[in-house]
This record gives sequence, structure tokens and C-alpha cells, in this order.
Amino acid sequence: MAAPSTPLLKDELDIVIPTIRNLDFLEMWRPFFEQYHLIIVQDGDPSKVIKVPEGFDYELYNRNDINRILGPKASCISFKDSACRCFGYMVSKKKYIYTIDDDCFVAKDPSGKDINALQQHIENLLSPSTPLFFNTLYDPYREGADFVRGYPFSLREGVPTAVSHGLWLNIPDYDAPTQLVKPRERNTRYVDAVMTIPKGTIFPMCGMNLGFNRDLIGPAMYFGLMGDGQPIGRYDDMWAGWCTKVICDHLNLGVKTGLPYIWHSKASNPFVNLKKEYKGIYWQEEIIPFFQAVTLPKECTTVQQCYLELAKQVKAKLSATDPYFTKLADAMVTWIEAWDELNPTGDVAAKLPNGAAK
Amino acid sequence: MAAPSTPLLKDELDIVIPTIRNLDFLEMWRPFFEQYHLIIVQDGDPSKVIKVPEGFDYELYNRNDINRILGPKASCISFKDSACRCFGYMVSKKKYIYTIDDDCFVAKDPSGKDINALQQHIENLLSPSTPLFFNTLYDPYREGADFVRGYPFSLREGVPTAVSHGLWLNIPDYDAPTQLVKPRERNTRYVDAVMTIPKGTIFPMCGMNLGFNRDLIGPAMYFGLMGDGQPIGRYDDMWAGWCTKVICDHLNLGVKTGLPYIWHSKASNPFVNLKKEYKGIYWQEEIIPFFQAVTLPKECTTVQQCYLELAKQVKAKLSATDPYFTKLADAMVTWIEAWDELNPTGDVAAKLPNGAAK
Repeated sequence: MAAPSTPLLKDELDIVIPTIRNLDFLEMWRPFFEQYHLIIVQDGDPSKVIKVPEGFDYELYNRNDINRILGPKASCISFKDSACRCFGYMVSKKKYIYTIDDDCFVAKDPSGKDINALQQHIENLLSPSTPLFFNTLYDPYREGADFVRGYPFSLREGVPTAVSHGLWLNIPDYDAPTQLVKPRERNTRYVDAVMTIPKGTIFPMCGMNLGFNRDLIGPAMYFGLMGDGQPIGRYDDMWAGWCTKVICDHLNLGVKTGLPYIWHSKASNPFVNLKKEYKGIYWQEEIIPFFQAVTLPKECTTVQQCYLELAKQVKAKLSATDPYFTKLADAMVTWIEAWDELNPTGDVAAKLPNGAAK
Repeated sequence: MAAPSTPLLKDELDIVIPTIRNLDFLEMWRPFFEQYHLIIVQDGDPSKVIKVPEGFDYELYNRNDINRILGPKASCISFKDSACRCFGYMVSKKKYIYTIDDDCFVAKDPSGKDINALQQHIENLLSPSTPLFFNTLYDPYREGADFVRGYPFSLREGVPTAVSHGLWLNIPDYDAPTQLVKPRERNTRYVDAVMTIPKGTIFPMCGMNLGFNRDLIGPAMYFGLMGDGQPIGRYDDMWAGWCTKVICDHLNLGVKTGLPYIWHSKASNPFVNLKKEYKGIYWQEEIIPFFQAVTLPKECTTVQQCYLELAKQVKAKLSATDPYFTKLADAMVTWIEAWDELNPTGDVAAKLPNGAAK
């Protein structure tokens, strides 16, 4: 658990929730979320009214709002897919974002205590990461832990943390084939660890329970083109994770995974998922080697520059896999244009701590 | 905990223990170790008699034995340092090795049950590793776990596991400066995870509680020149870990870390440790970048070939740091010669599963 002294950052953090239904799930989160501002991104039919429990401070955007705010650039925001959540990252003006799915509830730690997931994410984001060398006792900055023998002293300062990837008890984040094969599998293992994903290693980032430093990495957190009119779904967070990790590695920023857990209550329908995923399942066999091999030129010193360069390489190297990637690469550019329009101070590098970009 | 069905491998595994004293610590391990063969490598004064509790099946080698067996090649085996343990790896004829320090006792899991460390190591070694992509739910082969959404299906078979690196409750494996600064720190966090260290990431390998597949990686498990007559100590396992990981990555073998825990009872003297370590503390700032950058040519398809190539590169690139590395590089060659002499079937590649070397 995060130390009690963890700052709340209540004026510096927005909670982004994509949804198509009433947000009853917030009742359970009330003690932990009520003091934060929520950005609700309503997916699907904009005429539907989404009920938010009383007492929460929120703004809500439906598709009409997105179209109105972004104009033609709204094309880069997915429809009928939770990928639409990234619109919330763009309109936020806060330094930190926490995003959570509306089928995620408060989990309990092994002692039976409710886990304050947000507090742990904040702790993860405020302490450095260690992507440059592996520490066998996990996060060396946690209380009761440190760097083990053999850890280079020159690397013990760590690097700024850009992403905190939390996990899930109960329903694990499996793909459709695994859901079909193991319909009853539940994750009951509470692993009491936070760790940095090493530099050069990409990972499957899940958007269900995710915190990040918007100032450091926001423009890379694009959840792609999914859902309505697209040949693919359920790869939105994967796409964001691959792009983000490659850019974090280039800019010397850290990505942590592990604690906190949330309680994931409801597995999505594996048959529907299979339909959404099946192209992704074979495309990823080419996409992942692409991201494992990609390098960004030294001249790219801001997240935006990195992201535009990545879009260029996606178009050049993945379009042969499917014409979809040409469209996606164009949407990546549109996303950055829209981001910069809504965030005119734009230059994320200016906010990077000294020496973070190299 | 390992599944009850884990095979015992009692005819395929040796336990190697370096020591300078009576092995009373074995009493606590009796239920777990008694059915295995022990190889005791006595360090220091060979005239001293080491008492081994009754009922254990063992062979014991002191310095006179090492000198007699290896002749002039005995120069590669350290004296007055637990690095001497690697002599035990060389004389073993078994497929698996487990090595443990004599100040390590049986730890308890959070439910209060004694941890059968050896059984967990066996489970780690018998199940594949996943160095080619990161799994956020840790070891996907453990019961109740699997590969998460976004994990490439082509990589789910994994690769053979060469090394199982276990951890320590109570006294953590800290360097002398950290011991001096945090004399009272104890590791009380039981992290219920086993994970593969990603390809391309080296790590600080501790020899206190370590299992490995001798057929797959044995000749890389050389613990270097430490102790008597050498300018450095306490880097024996680190050296072995750096070399081993680089070779595992090249040969497409896996290295796991995490469970099992042992109970480490006694911190070594931090003042003595500082004296042993201080050169290593600044040398590692050059050694680690060397190992992070090293590449082995495709032509190296056996552990021996890889190791000799590594020795060549150590001599070429680290000798400028200190003349010690010239001596060490020569000892690496001697070690392989001695290994091949004692293990005339020698060619480890012949024992690699199909496709393991690429």
C-alpha cells in the first residue's frame, strides 16, 4: 500500500471514464474519487442520458460534443469503442490522468482492507522508475526495499515515471481465445510488487486501470482507431502502450507495472471479443516486431515529435500488412494536431525535468 | 508454491554448498534436502574438518582436492571466497544444480508454511521462460495465470529455462554502503511472483539461493577470480550473472527471478564487505555497460563457444579498466578447459532442445 503521506494531488489529477451507461460503479469508489474531477466520455448514442451519482464533480462529453470541439479532426477519436477515452486526456488540463473502466470495483488487499488504487498510482507516478537496470527486489523506492548488491550507483537516481500500469483481481485481462478456453479462470493472486519495465522491452498495456503523467507523455496516449467503421477493436490500449513505451524509452522516462489492483467484475463477451480481435491477433505478430525494432532519431526531443516520427514509420512499414495502418498513421497525425490545438502551450519538452530527454 | 506434482528430480540434481564451517544449517533443511546428493566445497584451511549432519549423502572437496583434480588449472578456482562453489558445478554430473549459502534457512510463506525452496526452483526450471515479450501477470505458466491480452501467440510456447534466481526474506542482499546506511533494514515483503527477465536486460544475480540447468548453461556459471590474491570479492555471482544472461539471450534460453524465498539469517560484516567490494563498485560502472552492449557472433552456438568469445571481449575491452580483467579473461579460458576436461562429452549444444540455439 502507498504510504499515508502520499499527496492527494486533487487539483492536479483528472479521472477519465469512458462509458455507455449510468455510472453506478462510482458509488463504491466514492471515498476515493469524490474529491477528484471526473471527465466522462460518453460512447455510443449521444441522446442517451448517463446518470452520475450525486456529489461527484464532473464534465461529460458525448459524440456531439467531440464533433463540435474537434470539428473535422474528430475523425481521430474512435466511436463505439472505449478507445474514445483518449478524448478525455486531450481536454484535461491537469498534470496527471487516471483512467478506469466502469466494470472495475474496489479490490481488497490480503488483509481484507479496501485498496485505494488511485493513491498507489500517485505513489508510483511520484517516485522514479529504474528502466536502465533490473532490481531483483522490485521497486527500490518502496518502503522496506532498496537497490540490491550489484546495482550501479550511477543509476540509483532513476528517471521520471510517466506511466503506472495497474492490474486486476478476479477477471483477468485475457484475449478472446483464452477467455473461450478458460471461461472460469479468475485471478486470485495478489502480487505485492511494483516494478519498472526495462528499457527496450515493450509490454501489453491495459487501459482498464491506468495512471500517467500527462505532462510527460500525454500526446503518446492515443488509443487509435477502433470500433465503428474500423476493422479492429480491443487493441486501443495495446496500441497506446506500444507507442508510449517506445517513446518513454527514447525520452528516458519510466513505465511501472504491478500494484494497484482493482476488482474487475465482468468479463466481456468472448464471442464479440473474438470478432473485434481476430485481425489484431495476427496483425500483432507483425506489429510487435515493428515496435521492438523501431528507433527514433535523436532530433526527436518532444513527445509530439516522437509521435509524428512514429506515425511516419507506421505508414512506411505497417501499411503492407493492411491498408488500415495508412489510415491509422494519418489519424495519429490528426491526433497530434488536435492535441496541440487544445493544448496551445503544446511543447511537452518544456515541462520535462532537466535531463529527462536525451 | 510449486504444485504437489512437481517431480523431485532426485537423481538429476546436486546441491552445491560452499562453506568454511560445520553444516549445522542442514538440520533445518533435512526434510527437503536429505534425498538429494550434496557437493560441499570447503573453502579456506583444508586441514579443518567440516562436520556434516548424519544422514546426508555428500561428497566434500577442500583446496587440496581441487588442486589435485585440476592441477595447474586449479588457478581458475577462487580461494577464501565463496566463488569456490563453482568447482562443485564442474564436478557434478547431474542435469540440475541448486546452490545455497550456509547462512540461509527455511523461510515461511504468508500462511506460515515452510517454503520448500528446492521444489519451487525445480518448478521454475521445468516450465518455460518468456524472455521475448513481457507478461504483466508474471509467469504465465503458473496455476491460475496465463498470457494476457496482447501477448503474441507465436511466443506462447516460451523458451527453455536455464536459470532460476530465488530471493531472500529477512536480510536482503545489499552492498556494503547500503548495509552501512540501513543496518536495520529487513526484507519482510513476500512477493508471490516468478517472472522472466526480458531478453536484453542484464540483472544482479545473487548466488545465495540459485538453481540452474547445468546441461543448458553450466559452463557459463563461472564465479570468477575473487578473494585470496585478488583485488576484489563479492562480485563472483554478479560476474556469473552478467555472463550467463548475455549467453542465455544469445542462445534463446530463459532466466527467471522471484520465488522461492529463503530466510537469510546473518548479514556479513559491512566493513569487511566494503573492503572487498570497493573496486567492484566503481568497476561495475564500466562492466555493466560492457555487458549491456556485448553481442556474440552467430557462429557461437554452444555455451563454451559463447564463453570463450566473451573472454576475448573482456580482455579486449575491460583490460583498460584494470589489469585484473586480463587475468580474469585468462581464467575464463582456463575454466572452460577444465570444464571440458572433467566433462568430456562437453558439447552442451548437443543437449539443447531442438531450436533452442538460434
